[in-house]
Amino acid sequence: MHVRNRTDRLPEWERRLDLPLLVASLLFLACYAVIVLSHGRDPLLGDVALSVLLTVWALFAVDYAVRLVLSGQGVHFVTTHWLDTVVLLLPLLRPVRIVNTYVTLQRRRDQPRLSLYGRVMSYAGITAALLSLATALAVYQQERGAPGATIRTFGDSVWWACSAITTVGYGDVTPVTSLGRVFAVFLMVCGLALLGAVTGSFSSWLIQVFGREDQGGRTSAANRPPDDRRPPGS
Amino acid sequence: MHVRNRTDRLPEWERRLDLPLLVASLLFLACYAVIVLSHGRDPLLGDVALSVLLTVWALFAVDYAVRLVLSGQGVHFVTTHWLDTVVLLLPLLRPVRIVNTYVTLQRRRDQPRLSLYGRVMSYAGITAALLSLATALAVYQQERGAPGATIRTFGDSVWWACSAITTVGYGDVTPVTSLGRVFAVFLMVCGLALLGAVTGSFSSWLIQVFGREDQGGRTSAANRPPDDRRPPGS
Amino acid sequence: MHVRNRTDRLPEWERRLDLPLLVASLLFLACYAVIVLSHGRDPLLGDVALSVLLTVWALFAVDYAVRLVLSGQGVHFVTTHWLDTVVLLLPLLRPVRIVNTYVTLQRRRDQPRLSLYGRVMSYAGITAALLSLATALAVYQQERGAPGATIRTFGDSVWWACSAITTVGYGDVTPVTSLGRVFAVFLMVCGLALLGAVTGSFSSWLIQVFGREDQGGRTSAANRPPDDRRPPGS
Amino acid sequence: MHVRNRTDRLPEWERRLDLPLLVASLLFLACYAVIVLSHGRDPLLGDVALSVLLTVWALFAVDYAVRLVLSGQGVHFVTTHWLDTVVLLLPLLRPVRIVNTYVTLQRRRDQPRLSLYGRVMSYAGITAALLSLATALAVYQQERGAPGATIRTFGDSVWWACSAITTVGYGDVTPVTSLGRVFAVFLMVCGLALLGAVTGSFSSWLIQVFGREDQGGRTSAANRPPDDRRPPGS
Repeated sequence: MHVRNRTDRLPEWERRLDLPLLVASLLFLACYAVIVLSHGRDPLLGDVALSVLLTVWALFAVDYAVRLVLSGQGVHFVTTHWLDTVVLLLPLLRPVRIVNTYVTLQRRRDQPRLSLYGRVMSYAGITAALLSLATALAVYQQERGAPGATIRTFGDSVWWACSAITTVGYGDVTPVTSLGRVFAVFLMVCGLALLGAVTGSFSSWLIQVFGREDQGGRTSAANRPPDDRRPPGS
Repeated sequence: MHVRNRTDRLPEWERRLDLPLLVASLLFLACYAVIVLSHGRDPLLGDVALSVLLTVWALFAVDYAVRLVLSGQGVHFVTTHWLDTVVLLLPLLRPVRIVNTYVTLQRRRDQPRLSLYGRVMSYAGITAALLSLATALAVYQQERGAPGATIRTFGDSVWWACSAITTVGYGDVTPVTSLGRVFAVFLMVCGLALLGAVTGSFSSWLIQVFGREDQGGRTSAANRPPDDRRPPGS
Repeated sequence: MHVRNRTDRLPEWERRLDLPLLVASLLFLACYAVIVLSHGRDPLLGDVALSVLLTVWALFAVDYAVRLVLSGQGVHFVTTHWLDTVVLLLPLLRPVRIVNTYVTLQRRRDQPRLSLYGRVMSYAGITAALLSLATALAVYQQERGAPGATIRTFGDSVWWACSAITTVGYGDVTPVTSLGRVFAVFLMVCGLALLGAVTGSFSSWLIQVFGREDQGGRTSAANRPPDDRRPPGS
Repeated sequence: MHVRNRTDRLPEWERRLDLPLLVASLLFLACYAVIVLSHGRDPLLGDVALSVLLTVWALFAVDYAVRLVLSGQGVHFVTTHWLDTVVLLLPLLRPVRIVNTYVTLQRRRDQPRLSLYGRVMSYAGITAALLSLATALAVYQQERGAPGATIRTFGDSVWWACSAITTVGYGDVTPVTSLGRVFAVFLMVCGLALLGAVTGSFSSWLIQVFGREDQGGRTSAANRPPDDRRPPGS
């Protein structure tokens, strides 16, 4: 059977490309950081980063096009894979494809190293951190030159992003531009959901560990290797 | 048997009217937005919107009266259906009848398109968005002319509503009038419950997806169509 | 057997006294509100309210003493019933005895009127509202004359309490005195737990209602009386 | 068999040392508090506290070294027990070893005194309180002399820490130094997880208590000793 079905080739393409695309996403974020932070200081570095960023973006477009063709769905692919379409247009949002990344990395190992709650906490936590960083960069780029801005340095922006994603929201530094506020709302909603997942998993894990004592006897607990008592993220 | 029981006719009335009433609710919100935003700029547009709004409100009253009669409960209906009574008096709160809307729309399809958690997230999220919009309009109307107000544009009001419903609460813009603060407290309490439902469902969905990997083998995960890994709201 | 065991008489005492004590708690809160709000305006009204408040407090002390004796535990009762001891010293905290109140009221009815989640939401919500009111009064009393205070009217204090208990925390008005901040921390911690219970119950109820549709058929949903779709607090 | 296996001796070492180390952790925190608060007032007291603090730190290092040797893992121990490594370098974080502490204390008793949810609430609550105190001290030390600081007294710092860990975040006092903000982010993330565990357990406990009424009859509830209705932390 030398004729392979198209739908068979799509998973194979995804399996091969997912890890390179993950690296490319991090490269994209790094280039964006260099562009924003080198602005007005080192034009050459900014130009180099911009070139790399555009190249990576082109790779994302190629991957999207190949998957569109392999899926055999035609234009319908744009709506059925709307999340892929969104992250193609706004590559900074790539971290939200958290579950795909997880499934890819998991597939390469035989046995998950972390417990279920540990995995949820790790992935949700990493996604929240990457989204905070991307939003801090984007908000800083918007607010930098705005009149009456309270976010003046990149440090301010990171501090603001941390207080936004944890829903603390001090309000000592806040975005004042319209676009900055749009990014902020996006971060607040995503952060609520992602950190809610971290909190919920931690809570469930704690109840599980404390409840385990009730069933197991005192003696067995004393003999258990200490590694069992480590937090789920270790 | 040409004499039909009244209690049989109530569900039929509700089945027929629920979708038109849903459209009417959105129309009511749109008219209210036009009235608030066109204030002091385009009197004619405001008057037209006010007429439509009052007409829609009258329709709501008719629907309420018909259901009161069909229920055969008389005045007792006012207290047993207190939520319907409240949304009759304050039609901007109609989105809180989220479950009724859901049941109606679900009934028209044979099979729900989304998973359980996806449905809860969608409905709670849409309700939260509609309530935020309605509250932002109402607060803007109150604060617009108030002395010492920090909410000066509609954009400020939307920004405030987003930071209130996510419980971030920056405090850079806050209502200062009594009525504005009453609306704000309502939004904060509803937002807490609705976004808590979104967060909880997302968290449960994430734990479900990550846990599925433990049971299913590696191979089956690789062959699964990619659509399964999309977020619940897709 | 005309000699009754002391431990038999304690539940009987509690059964008889719980409802009067609940009314007394509300009376205490009302008197405290009158004292705080009439300060500097109507000395006579304040004195009357103070007399009633002290009388109610004395009743609480009598109830505590009787239960201490009936329990047969002597001084040990002070530590085993530490929550009762705390609310004896700080009667404004009486609403935190939420579960006792619930059990008492439930016992008088044969059938609970609300679903499980509806009951948790109602009781936690009412407790949160009463604690907010008590804290708003206490903070207002502290802050009223303080230099540099941002809480100047009772309305400010209520607005602050609502933003504190929902964890929104705008920061436009905040307590500046030490004692005011101690009350605030108490409210924030209690509010977090109580509104967390409201949010969690609402979320569970929503998932339950949306999940019910999957099991029940379309037809049965259409014929179900509309009351079933009302929110749990109705 | 006079030759005992090394892995047998590690649990024994941990069993013997865990309670002394717990006391040492509290002593370390107390010494740090004395150093920070006596700064510029009583040099002698500060020096004494510093000596004790360094001695305790040396004890932590000895304990770590002994466990490293007993584990037989060599340098590998540093990464497998990364949490122990972190708390060796930053002893103020020792409260995060909450689960180890719990297991140790539990082992000394035959029967847990509290219900499962009560235990989770107690341990998460105590950890949150200790972390808040440690962070308030560290932030106060950083902010004290900073230009433009809003945290000027230790009371301000405690007030800030309480509003941060409950995610209320007023923003009337906030850290302005870089290191102060790093500590703040740490507290916000830990607080979110720990207080989420407290909230979740309280919510679950409330639902459990309210649900119990449905199964048990009215009569049995009336005869149950009142202690059952006390909150889980009593």
